[in-house]
Amino acid sequence: MSQKEPDSQIGYLHSEDTYPELIIECDSRSLCTDEAVGKDLWKKAKYQKRPSFNLVGETEDEQRTYGKSDIDRIWVAVDGMGGDYAPGTILEGCLRAVELLPLKIRFVAEPELFDLAVQELRLEDKLQRALSNGLIELIPSGISIAMSEEPTMVRRKCRASINIAMDLVRIGRATSMYSAGNSGAVMASAIFRLGRLVGIDRPAIGALFPTKDPNQQVLVLDVGANTDCKPSYLHQFALLGNIYSQYVLQVEQPRIGLINIGEEDCKGNELCLKTYPLLMAENRFNFVGNCEGRDVLSGNFDVVICDGFTGNVMLKFLESVGSVLLEVLRAELPRGRRGKVGSAFLQRNLVRIKKRLDHAEHGGALLLGINGISVIGHGSSKALSVVSALRLAYSAAHHNVMSDLKKLSTAIVN
Amino acid sequence: MSQKEPDSQIGYLHSEDTYPELIIECDSRSLCTDEAVGKDLWKKAKYQKRPSFNLVGETEDEQRTYGKSDIDRIWVAVDGMGGDYAPGTILEGCLRAVELLPLKIRFVAEPELFDLAVQELRLEDKLQRALSNGLIELIPSGISIAMSEEPTMVRRKCRASINIAMDLVRIGRATSMYSAGNSGAVMASAIFRLGRLVGIDRPAIGALFPTKDPNQQVLVLDVGANTDCKPSYLHQFALLGNIYSQYVLQVEQPRIGLINIGEEDCKGNELCLKTYPLLMAENRFNFVGNCEGRDVLSGNFDVVICDGFTGNVMLKFLESVGSVLLEVLRAELPRGRRGKVGSAFLQRNLVRIKKRLDHAEHGGALLLGINGISVIGHGSSKALSVVSALRLAYSAAHHNVMSDLKKLSTAIVN
Repeated sequence: MSQKEPDSQIGYLHSEDTYPELIIECDSRSLCTDEAVGKDLWKKAKYQKRPSFNLVGETEDEQRTYGKSDIDRIWVAVDGMGGDYAPGTILEGCLRAVELLPLKIRFVAEPELFDLAVQELRLEDKLQRALSNGLIELIPSGISIAMSEEPTMVRRKCRASINIAMDLVRIGRATSMYSAGNSGAVMASAIFRLGRLVGIDRPAIGALFPTKDPNQQVLVLDVGANTDCKPSYLHQFALLGNIYSQYVLQVEQPRIGLINIGEEDCKGNELCLKTYPLLMAENRFNFVGNCEGRDVLSGNFDVVICDGFTGNVMLKFLESVGSVLLEVLRAELPRGRRGKVGSAFLQRNLVRIKKRLDHAEHGGALLLGINGISVIGHGSSKALSVVSALRLAYSAAHHNVMSDLKKLSTAIVN
Repeated sequence: MSQKEPDSQIGYLHSEDTYPELIIECDSRSLCTDEAVGKDLWKKAKYQKRPSFNLVGETEDEQRTYGKSDIDRIWVAVDGMGGDYAPGTILEGCLRAVELLPLKIRFVAEPELFDLAVQELRLEDKLQRALSNGLIELIPSGISIAMSEEPTMVRRKCRASINIAMDLVRIGRATSMYSAGNSGAVMASAIFRLGRLVGIDRPAIGALFPTKDPNQQVLVLDVGANTDCKPSYLHQFALLGNIYSQYVLQVEQPRIGLINIGEEDCKGNELCLKTYPLLMAENRFNFVGNCEGRDVLSGNFDVVICDGFTGNVMLKFLESVGSVLLEVLRAELPRGRRGKVGSAFLQRNLVRIKKRLDHAEHGGALLLGINGISVIGHGSSKALSVVSALRLAYSAAHHNVMSDLKKLSTAIVN
């Protein structure tokens, strides 16, 4: 895993009580309203056991301590304050993830809220173990950005957890970051802190939807970053999705579709009508035409392009349909005497079906088009979703998708 | 059922071989390119047995022949040429519908294609029976409007089946019409032939989605008539949906939601941000706020408002999710020995689940905001969808929804 050199504008202070403090670069043009700057060091020493920010396998000591398999672990920065159930549930997911996946987590959170959540969920022992094993590190943050706040608040709340997690990626202290917070704010922070890829006007959020074929997924983008789009944005989404599908999902020649309300090229809203010829004229990917709502899960497309409003509605709708149908199953299957007997026989298979439909299993989306890997979770993420999103973060970092996306930049400008 | 007086501009010719011919009013400003005008009389006499266009229960003879229950049947005009499998499958659905529902059908189609389809599907006997019983009448039409054609073609192809079916409603020869054709063309024809309700800029297509609660449906509009919307359109959709939900679905105080990507009023695309305050300021209905994709099927809303692009994608997506999940069930349930035994016990319940999920069961949408009842089916409608759509046409006509919608007109302008 290639690591970037620390950025000269950002440095680390190992505070007296061994906690690192990130000096966060503030935008001089906007007023930093974060009153906690400088005051919110992680005061309590009870969790942290080791000095922070040794890259994995960096020191001989670390190599001796954690052994070969641990050296392969990669660092992921987690915005511990993002999401409706943060920070407790996010931490819970992280603790599970480090048991299941070859990664280590730099967990960024407001210390006081974090401590409360740890007590509430009784995670002290588990956390302590993970800290002692060096699988989790805690990084203090300032006041967080609320779900209802404007994305631009990332410029005022400089020490918000989103910003710190993003900076960890920027300076190479993490290979990727994950946040279940305000997705607009995650995107804004990514743009300000990591920057866009050359040739990309607006980054997009790409989500993987299941298809009829259990072995195939379809990448849908944008699912929420850009509510109002221009045709050129959709064109760029197609370029981004194409690369991602090729290099991370290993699809040789991804079939790209444009979400529309009819198959014919004369159908659609103004945006689609203007986008269609752009995609049609493109020879850098395989545009196969319009994709109606009913075709998204058909398995006939590998990448599906849409504006962020439509994609977001569709993503959330999909999740709910799964749970509605589970309720239908629960209500209908055991009806009657035969139903009761049959259902009893099917317990194990029903659990598997639930797992396949459950959105928590598909709980992360990638921010594409920025200069680093960011995974965005649902605001309502529970522990299982967090694990699933971290799996995605690992997978993207592991496949070194960034280097491919940077190649794309060159391709777009040329 | 109140019947309108025949429009003076439109009359009927009973052709020599007893087939009625509709003299279709053509827009003098647009050139009528339909070469078949005047030539496409239904030449073959083999199906038709009775003189056409006696309104149900209109003649004593009819009352004697068909008895009391038949008098209660209402006339529905069907665009026999609309849809991917027209006219055969549409006729098949109509033949089934007249057995199940208290209605009679005026079936409009191109005679030659109709004859071919009847032969192909071997519907001769069934059709003959329905004709002899006066449950179906055949009306010849000119060249149809293709799925890929511009909606404005309804002004050039004056004798297209959509136009004739619409005119039957206009002159009171049918209480409602059904088409599974080009939905843009259906809307255009409805606007030109029937006219909009006073105060309504753009009619909308409203579809009923199932919810978690088997006894509750949610009305989603628009699902395809208006791909690009203004805030005032969405405002009017809310007014239309409110009345429809109250009078046809019998919801006392419908809870109205606006499709958006977040619950907060600051979230959304430009259209939603501008629509929200309009709905908020309204006191003629109960606007309960933004409705995310995941909330549509929650049962927390009775009416959900969105632009026709988003609604159409969602509608088609919903249908496909049902069938994808059925495939998941089919694949996962019988796995293993216990699974096979259990599935065998569950056969009957599985059929019921399939029925509840199958989109063919939910196969029609209402065109709201025009001066008459039009039901639009999916382009891919099969016989079962046709029956389901005709049930909706019957239900709307039976509840006399038009008189309530006309009251709305007064409410909107006041």
